Amino acid sequence: MKKLILWTGLACSLLFGAAANANDEVQKLTQDPNQWVLQTGDYANTRYSKLDQINAGNVNKLQVAWTFSTGVLRGHEGAPIVVGDIMYVHSPFPNTVFALDLNDDGKIIWKYEPKQDPNVIPVMCCDTVNRGLAYADGKVFLHQADTTVVALDAKTGKVVWSVVNGDPKAGATNTATVMPVKDKVLVGISGGEFGVQCHVTAYDLKTGKLAWRAYSEGPDDQILFDPVKTTALGKPVGADSSLKTWQGDQWKTGGGCTWGWYSYDPATNLVYYGSGNPSTWNPKQRPGDNKWSMTIFARDADTGVAKWVYQMTPHDEWDYDGINEMVLVDQKIDGKDRNLLVHFDRNGFGYTLDRKTGELLVAEKYDPAVNWASKIDMDPKSATYGRPLVVAQYSTEQNGEDVNSKGICPAALGTKDQQPSAFSPRTGLFYVPTNHVCMDYEPFKVSYTPGQPYVGATLSMYPAPNSHGGMGNFIAWDATKGKIVWSLPEQFSVWSGALATAGDVVFYGTLEGYLKAVDAKTGKELYKFKTPSGIIGNVMTYTHKGKQYVAVLSGVGGWAGIGLAAGLTDPNAGLGAVGGYAALNSYTALGGQLTVFAVP
Amino acid sequence: MKKLILWTGLACSLLFGAAANANDEVQKLTQDPNQWVLQTGDYANTRYSKLDQINAGNVNKLQVAWTFSTGVLRGHEGAPIVVGDIMYVHSPFPNTVFALDLNDDGKIIWKYEPKQDPNVIPVMCCDTVNRGLAYADGKVFLHQADTTVVALDAKTGKVVWSVVNGDPKAGATNTATVMPVKDKVLVGISGGEFGVQCHVTAYDLKTGKLAWRAYSEGPDDQILFDPVKTTALGKPVGADSSLKTWQGDQWKTGGGCTWGWYSYDPATNLVYYGSGNPSTWNPKQRPGDNKWSMTIFARDADTGVAKWVYQMTPHDEWDYDGINEMVLVDQKIDGKDRNLLVHFDRNGFGYTLDRKTGELLVAEKYDPAVNWASKIDMDPKSATYGRPLVVAQYSTEQNGEDVNSKGICPAALGTKDQQPSAFSPRTGLFYVPTNHVCMDYEPFKVSYTPGQPYVGATLSMYPAPNSHGGMGNFIAWDATKGKIVWSLPEQFSVWSGALATAGDVVFYGTLEGYLKAVDAKTGKELYKFKTPSGIIGNVMTYTHKGKQYVAVLSGVGGWAGIGLAAGLTDPNAGLGAVGGYAALNSYTALGGQLTVFAVP
Ligand SMILES: O=C(O)c1cc(C(=O)O)c2c(n1)C(=O)C(=O)c1cc(C(=O)O)[nH]c1-2
Ligand SMILES: O=C(O)c1cc(C(=O)O)c2c(n1)C(=O)C(=O)c1cc(C(=O)O)[nH]c1-2
Repeated sequence: MKKLILWTGLACSLLFGAAANANDEVQKLTQDPNQWVLQTGDYANTRYSKLDQINAGNVNKLQVAWTFSTGVLRGHEGAPIVVGDIMYVHSPFPNTVFALDLNDDGKIIWKYEPKQDPNVIPVMCCDTVNRGLAYADGKVFLHQADTTVVALDAKTGKVVWSVVNGDPKAGATNTATVMPVKDKVLVGISGGEFGVQCHVTAYDLKTGKLAWRAYSEGPDDQILFDPVKTTALGKPVGADSSLKTWQGDQWKTGGGCTWGWYSYDPATNLVYYGSGNPSTWNPKQRPGDNKWSMTIFARDADTGVAKWVYQMTPHDEWDYDGINEMVLVDQKIDGKDRNLLVHFDRNGFGYTLDRKTGELLVAEKYDPAVNWASKIDMDPKSATYGRPLVVAQYSTEQNGEDVNSKGICPAALGTKDQQPSAFSPRTGLFYVPTNHVCMDYEPFKVSYTPGQPYVGATLSMYPAPNSHGGMGNFIAWDATKGKIVWSLPEQFSVWSGALATAGDVVFYGTLEGYLKAVDAKTGKELYKFKTPSGIIGNVMTYTHKGKQYVAVLSGVGGWAGIGLAAGLTDPNAGLGAVGGYAALNSYTALGGQLTVFAVP
Repeated sequence: MKKLILWTGLACSLLFGAAANANDEVQKLTQDPNQWVLQTGDYANTRYSKLDQINAGNVNKLQVAWTFSTGVLRGHEGAPIVVGDIMYVHSPFPNTVFALDLNDDGKIIWKYEPKQDPNVIPVMCCDTVNRGLAYADGKVFLHQADTTVVALDAKTGKVVWSVVNGDPKAGATNTATVMPVKDKVLVGISGGEFGVQCHVTAYDLKTGKLAWRAYSEGPDDQILFDPVKTTALGKPVGADSSLKTWQGDQWKTGGGCTWGWYSYDPATNLVYYGSGNPSTWNPKQRPGDNKWSMTIFARDADTGVAKWVYQMTPHDEWDYDGINEMVLVDQKIDGKDRNLLVHFDRNGFGYTLDRKTGELLVAEKYDPAVNWASKIDMDPKSATYGRPLVVAQYSTEQNGEDVNSKGICPAALGTKDQQPSAFSPRTGLFYVPTNHVCMDYEPFKVSYTPGQPYVGATLSMYPAPNSHGGMGNFIAWDATKGKIVWSLPEQFSVWSGALATAGDVVFYGTLEGYLKAVDAKTGKELYKFKTPSGIIGNVMTYTHKGKQYVAVLSGVGGWAGIGLAAGLTDPNAGLGAVGGYAALNSYTALGGQLTVFAVP
């Protein structure tokens, strides 16, 4: 115990100080398991904690330690962060931030209540969620729904700087967390359903000054590509790699939004993230591969220039945004140590790549229901190398406009959406909250109007047929082999992010509101507790005064819970999600609460 | 354990059946400690439970068993009720009702979502609260904010009947629970800040047909007084007892609202309740005693005719509504067994009366800070018998219009407001959640417009000076002597209803959000837990499958929490309550959650 306390002390001395290099500071803090300073837990996005006070042997004794209401309803994504003795909790729109005193039962030290125009709400595609705060350099960073990025003094809540990253009137909003890297803070943007030309932007950590901006599509100087040095599957991308794949000016309203998770590898100085769907959802209207939507990017953290890219779903026909997290792990493949990037894509394939080079190592379905593509072509000599082999029956492009393509798996919200997976170095396994949902998809012609939905498809979603009847699974995955190790059926999509710990327990939440703890090795359920509302937040852990706590936000919503969150009942509403999840109504109601657990 | 389970079985066979006499049924159910079918626990309003599994010896091991979010923010008053294996939970406006399956982790069996005009909200004086449901005759009764009384089929949630009790456009709303008595259901009404001529109304339990209505002021046939048989302090009231005490037609806009708690004594067939403030709050504008505002009524349950009345605060000058609960207990006074009615009035006096005759036995301050009256005249021979002896300095009438009378104790929200007390027959003590707040009060001239506020005073509130600095106390009171036995200082008013149990534990909630358990004998704190939001709900208990649970609603609001609930910051806003409770902002945020506790 002594050691833990010393650690905290050490970490605290770093806080609120003038760190010479924020990168070092954040990296140190993420390595201290007593704190949780980034949404992703660490730069590698493993969502793994070295804490083991709560473990497979005693997690069945877990109890609620304390609770907190955010005062806001609708979908609560993300998680609180803990820096020293302070917990920072955020809410969905209007994105209230609370600093809670862990030494005083969560007393509110300060509160930041942004005044945001409620007209932003209808411009948010998939509920008024926000994926949380990040800490660096004595500041807490919030990226508001209206795209205002604010740096708050961690001690006082005073605004140190703020900058506007996009225009909600033109369809740009934000739901993502930010990623502080070195002397910058990286931020994404949403708007794939509004035809925004999306980008990643780096702002100076201390001043908010724009450092670089990299678009997902457009000319090379906008996408920060070096035709020679930027590679795709080992080959230089060449000039105009994006422009060539769009008809005319369509890239200007091309989407490819950047609302997911960011990772960073200090060894390579690369940041990793994925881009979302090309706009519109009607593929007929945008011929070409629509690069670099649906792409994994590896960019230099200092300059933003792309080192390598990999497009998973060229010419998307299903809204399979590629924004899910990139988990950076070192594992052996074929007996060889590799620096890996593992990514569970919306399209239902689990990808394992070499994170230095972008070499594609493994690409397998992580839900057997996936049917839109038979496989990813893994033959480097093939003309379709690295591309999915699309099954004609499920091609909304081939079936054409105004034709309802039926039985496509996964549904648009993917085999996994924003809900992040976790990785345990102790088991070598990935723990993946998944959807087990299929869809009918009917594209239709749509015209672009700034700030208006630019969707062009009617969807309906339902549980994967001929399966267990539920809409989700929680799986353990071997990324070196591309194999499911175990799979737990769930009645609803698991829309909550997982946490793996050195106690060999994996935690996740369910849309009904359960926090569940399962054995990391076997998947055996060890504990469950019904929190006030459906969980779409991510489970996190920290210590306070030497005691381990596990915390999660409840508050049903997100795309899966949009029916409840926005009070929609037409089955096709909510971009097709309302019907499939209608039964949620019998399990939970809107909420917005933090529940903190401990073994007494 | 066996015995408890049998009990439940027996009780269940009564449920959902055609009870010959709803009175018998409800009475039996209230005597079964495994259930909680009325907000008041029993007809006597004791809020005492015979359950003792959770007791002074083990309550420190209490843990959260499960939770539920109502999907509504703002003040959550009242409590869930439990009938058999179903828990019924209500919310503030829009008054959603949930039937939760206790056999299936609180799965939602049915939900009733009234469509109410949001224009009702600004007509509610003191937050959008609702004090909960009642069960009788296979039906769950809800009295909505818009004064619609609905009887819902307990099994299906279908509306059996509904009736409109008042007109929100003329200032009438509802916050109170209903009281089913025999073949009728009794309902009150709110509107004392809008000049409503308030009343109690009995509707037929099976059909909703109006049976009788008794106004608080007006001609004898409207107030259902018998000039000869209706007594006040042992004497017939005589003809026109109300009319004589108002100037002209002022009784027609006279208030005297009936938004509090109701008790019933089957032995006398009398129902007991109190009436609220006379309208306006400017006493200069309404000369006279303003009868029967501020009055305890004992009325025949079948006819509504008043047996006796006692006006506590004639010609109110401070908004000391007399609506607090009447607790019916049998205790010895001076060695003689008496049938008592005990009432902790807003005006700061704790009254003990003979509930058969209305004889005044004890009237003492239950907070030493009370200063507006020196005492209640207890001399039957005195001309002012039964009246408070008002201290000139604190008389807003004597100081006059546009004069700010300072340092009046208690504040308008009284030494106690709606938060109900509990009584333990084991200790013979009352457990009273109190306010320890004083005020400045400046009356001003106001004219009556239907549906518009008719207040006529500017208030500010603050902690009782020269005391412990807090705004509340939780006290134990001996009603036979009129003495405080012990008193626990609290930082904020205790706005939550207490529960006493055979385990010799007393529970209450705090505005910061703590559920507290104290020793019934000594007041020693045995347990506390921070729930998601401030507690203004009432603690209740029940068993399920032989195990005892304690439940409470969180959700800060009510008059004390109106600043947070309605987002007000001007210290004089919220009828003067905002300033005094501003510090609440540092402890809690809006919420709406049920927390259910058990000893594992
Ligand atoms: O393309 C976009 O800009 C965009 C943004 C968002 C978002 O900001 O939440 C989502 C999506 N797309 C999306 O496709 C999607 O499935 C989705 C789910 C969620 C969620 O939080 O539950 N957001 C989003
Ligand atoms: O005179 C009335 O009609 C009336 C109604 C209500 C109400 O309906 O809640 C309150 C009051 N008065 C009142 O004086 C008061 O202190 C009060 C507190 C509360 C509350 O729920 O916190 N309601 C009311």
